[in-house]
Amino acid sequence: MGTVLVMWPVVLPGTMATPPVTLRIVLTLYDAARCPYCARVRIVLAEKGVEYEAIEIDVSDRPAWIYEKNTTGRVPVLEEDGWLLPESAVIMEYLEERYPEPALLAADAAERALARLWIFRHDHLTKPYYALRRGEEGAGDRLDQELAKLDAALEARPWLGGAAYGLADAAYVPWLLRMRDMLGVPLDPFPALVDWLDRLLDRPAVAAEAVVVAAL
Amino acid sequence: MGTVLVMWPVVLPGTMATPPVTLRIVLTLYDAARCPYCARVRIVLAEKGVEYEAIEIDVSDRPAWIYEKNTTGRVPVLEEDGWLLPESAVIMEYLEERYPEPALLAADAAERALARLWIFRHDHLTKPYYALRRGEEGAGDRLDQELAKLDAALEARPWLGGAAYGLADAAYVPWLLRMRDMLGVPLDPFPALVDWLDRLLDRPAVAAEAVVVAAL
Repeated sequence: MGTVLVMWPVVLPGTMATPPVTLRIVLTLYDAARCPYCARVRIVLAEKGVEYEAIEIDVSDRPAWIYEKNTTGRVPVLEEDGWLLPESAVIMEYLEERYPEPALLAADAAERALARLWIFRHDHLTKPYYALRRGEEGAGDRLDQELAKLDAALEARPWLGGAAYGLADAAYVPWLLRMRDMLGVPLDPFPALVDWLDRLLDRPAVAAEAVVVAAL
Repeated sequence: MGTVLVMWPVVLPGTMATPPVTLRIVLTLYDAARCPYCARVRIVLAEKGVEYEAIEIDVSDRPAWIYEKNTTGRVPVLEEDGWLLPESAVIMEYLEERYPEPALLAADAAERALARLWIFRHDHLTKPYYALRRGEEGAGDRLDQELAKLDAALEARPWLGGAAYGLADAAYVPWLLRMRDMLGVPLDPFPALVDWLDRLLDRPAVAAEAVVVAAL
C-alpha cells in the first residue's frame, strides 16, 4: 500500500544528446477496506501480481475531491497516468485485458458469457444482502434463496464461471466473506458454496481479503 | 426472420461407412419489437450480418415457457444449440467475441473500458426515461440533464466509445429513438446528440430499428 510500481516502461524518443527517457506509469486505486466492490478489484490486482498505490477513502465521510475522480463519488476508481476508470465490473474487465496473465476469463466465448452473466446479475445476491444489513423483514429468507441458487450452481460446476476460477468468483466472494464474518449468516446449509469458499480461501489473493474483513 | 442460418459447420466423426455429418447450428433470439434491450441485440446481429430466427414474445402477456428460457421471464434471450444467454449487455459482448468482424469494440483496452462504462451506466439515462413514461413529476428535467451529459460527451468524441462506432452506441440508440419518436422528447437542445443520431441512422442496422419504432 502506498507504494508505486513501474507498470510498463514508456520510452519517449530521445535525441543524440538526450538518451530515451523511461517514465514510470503509476496505477492508483481509490479504495476502501470495507467496500466489497473495491475488494473485487484488490483481488484481481493481487491475482495478476500488479502492484499499485492504494488511497483509502473514508466512505462515511467522502472527501470532496473524490467527485472529481468519479461523478458518483463512489469507489473503486482506478487511475492510470491521469486516466480514470470507475465501476468495479468495468475495472475487472479492463485489468483482464491489460494484464492477461494469469487469465481470469476462459478462452471459450460461452464460458466468458456465463462469467459475465453472474457479474451482471450480482444484485440478485447483493440486494437481499443490503436489505438484511438494513434489518428489513424477510431479507434473511430472500438471501437464503439466493444462496441456495449459488449452491446449486456450484454443485454443477466447480467455479461460478465454469471449469476454472476467475472474475465471477472474485466478483462474488467479497459479499460471502462479509455475510459470513460480519453478519453471521450461516452458510452450513449450502455445502457446495462452503466448499467453494474454502477453495477460494486457499488463494492468497482471497485469503488477504479475509484478513481485511477480520480487521473491519 | 424465421429463417435458419448455418452458423458454423459442426462435423461429427463418421465411420468408413458413414461420411461426416454436418449439423446446422441455429441461433434463435427471443425478441420483442417494442423492447429496447432486444433492439440492442438486433442492431449488433445486423451489424455483423448474422442471420437468426426471431421469436416474438408478447411482453404484455408473457408465455409461461419463456421462464424456462430465462428465470426472470425477460427478453432478449439468445439460444444457440440449446444453450441460453439472457441480458442484452452480456449478449452484446458474446456476439462481439463470437463474430469479431466487423469489430464493435476498439482494440485499445482503455477505449473498450470507456464503451463498457457507458453500457454499465445506461440506467443513468433509462431511469429518468422510464420515470417520464410513468408520468413522474420532474422526470423530464432529469432526462434532459442526462441528455445534456450525452451531448457533452458527443461533442468531445464522435461516438460514445471514442473514435469509432460500436457497442456503446448500439446500447443507447434504442432509447433515443423511442424518446424522440414515441415520447416526443425534443432533442434540438442537444446538437451533438442530434448529429450522432443522424450519423447512426445512416447505418442500415440502426435505420431498420427506426422502422421498427415507427410501427409500434
